[in-house]
Amino acid sequence: MVAVATQNTTRTRVEAVMRAAQNRICAALEGLEQAGASLDLHTGIEPGRFAERSWQRPGGGGGSARVLTEGLVFERGGVNVSAVHGADTPQSIWKDRPATKDQPYFATGLSMVLHPRNPYVPAFHANFRYFEAGPEWWFGGGMDLTPAYAFAEDARHFHRTLKAYCERHSLADYQTLKTTCDNYFYLKHRKEMRGIGGIFFDTLQPAGPEGFEQGLAFAADGLETILAAYLPLAERRMGQPYGERERQWQLYRRGRYAEFNLVYDKGTLFGLQTDGYIEAILMSLPPLARWEFEYTPAPGSPEAETLAFLQPQEWQ
Amino acid sequence: MVAVATQNTTRTRVEAVMRAAQNRICAALEGLEQAGASLDLHTGIEPGRFAERSWQRPGGGGGSARVLTEGLVFERGGVNVSAVHGADTPQSIWKDRPATKDQPYFATGLSMVLHPRNPYVPAFHANFRYFEAGPEWWFGGGMDLTPAYAFAEDARHFHRTLKAYCERHSLADYQTLKTTCDNYFYLKHRKEMRGIGGIFFDTLQPAGPEGFEQGLAFAADGLETILAAYLPLAERRMGQPYGERERQWQLYRRGRYAEFNLVYDKGTLFGLQTDGYIEAILMSLPPLARWEFEYTPAPGSPEAETLAFLQPQEWQ
Repeated sequence: MVAVATQNTTRTRVEAVMRAAQNRICAALEGLEQAGASLDLHTGIEPGRFAERSWQRPGGGGGSARVLTEGLVFERGGVNVSAVHGADTPQSIWKDRPATKDQPYFATGLSMVLHPRNPYVPAFHANFRYFEAGPEWWFGGGMDLTPAYAFAEDARHFHRTLKAYCERHSLADYQTLKTTCDNYFYLKHRKEMRGIGGIFFDTLQPAGPEGFEQGLAFAADGLETILAAYLPLAERRMGQPYGERERQWQLYRRGRYAEFNLVYDKGTLFGLQTDGYIEAILMSLPPLARWEFEYTPAPGSPEAETLAFLQPQEWQ
Repeated sequence: MVAVATQNTTRTRVEAVMRAAQNRICAALEGLEQAGASLDLHTGIEPGRFAERSWQRPGGGGGSARVLTEGLVFERGGVNVSAVHGADTPQSIWKDRPATKDQPYFATGLSMVLHPRNPYVPAFHANFRYFEAGPEWWFGGGMDLTPAYAFAEDARHFHRTLKAYCERHSLADYQTLKTTCDNYFYLKHRKEMRGIGGIFFDTLQPAGPEGFEQGLAFAADGLETILAAYLPLAERRMGQPYGERERQWQLYRRGRYAEFNLVYDKGTLFGLQTDGYIEAILMSLPPLARWEFEYTPAPGSPEAETLAFLQPQEWQ
């Protein structure tokens, strides 16, 4: 019985951290929408607000999807918290962890995606999660940036913020986590990165009696770092004028975003396999996306520059 | 040596059938674009023409992608013929056919997708293919229809044409092939069909000395049936007036099309794994697609009717 109580405590504590982060992040993004009202762009559009949709998973657990639609700064933003459990660890987990097969599991996480309206504001994704499956437990997560246009100063701010975050935790090495992210957000079939990366850790299971506390502290600080890493970029770019050409390029790049999420993203595949709330899982897909046969930006154009920009590199 | 010569002959013959069909289909679709010029809709848009792009696959073989972009009737149409070969049968094949593992393979096929401009004209997909892998060979293919709006008479014409086609060949049973198609073009995570189906056969390997000839005759007749099944529907609907509401619904349904192709479609996954010409493989993706969180059409609306329409049913 003690073991069960302890297990429930870890579950409850992580879930509470996720939910508090959801509140904080949504409030800050709504503040940005209000600030956007003073811009000259996008007249006639009202500042967006998050609407909450709670959902239950038939197999066990549920979540809360908060979605902002057709805002001033964000064409769509979604911040989803879930805590699901089931009798059998899904295949996407046990195939790499045989000990968890046919074992009960618990998973809680915060997942968020921002698709800005202005093509100069980068798209953003973050995910922090915690699993218990059979005898194993681990944290995972990270955040990454997907600009449609190349701004080196934005990329530097983002990566410096993440590096400083990692340096606050002895268990994390920025360089390792950055490389994991570069490798993960890669469209193999396009031989392209999705964006300029960030940090990503798939399995963090710190050893020792303080392991869980260290893992939770790292995840919690990561959730705190989301706004510090992203908000200044959105503030800096959201008033930058753009035209139809930039919009079309943004939509084209969003096609890549959809390709990545539907073909490669582990979180998406996990959601599809666990019969999660599909609208929350696919909230990450762009509101509008475009595909064009053999589109190649003109040499020397800002769009061509983006493609060169989207290569693994040191951003410090 | 005789075996090799025979093998090359089968390969050459099937590929020639595919290429002839490509010529015929593209010519007919360009004819439809010309006919579209007399319509009142879409003024300012020129009738589309197919542009050809030949491509080589580094590992062996290549193909010809013919793409029509921003036409009057078709926002995008693609008719791709490929013939590729390699030293090792890809995983997507050998996992179901152990005898083909580490064996050389050859694959030729015609694959086409039409994304019409007018939301009342259904999207169309067809694929006919022939494989040789190690000691095995087989034909596969079929065609299916994806309307954004429900027209029972269109669905009946399409399925009746396919039934008549199957009845011309003793090896084919329409009902079986229709069920295979219904099962295949199903978005499990949405619990939705992609469209109203058609026919589909994954592995056709007729027994006996005439097996190959029967298989080829069935595939060749299938390629002939494409225009008979689809063109009358495009002709009937391409002049039907529509507005922004219908356009938005079309884009939303195209999101489902993209989901299916990137998550489930075997041809797409085969292409991604075999390092095929990625622009030709992903030509099937819609030119523009939309996702909306928790969108539900108003009860009783034509859009809600479509959702009821997209259920497996008898169309005779």
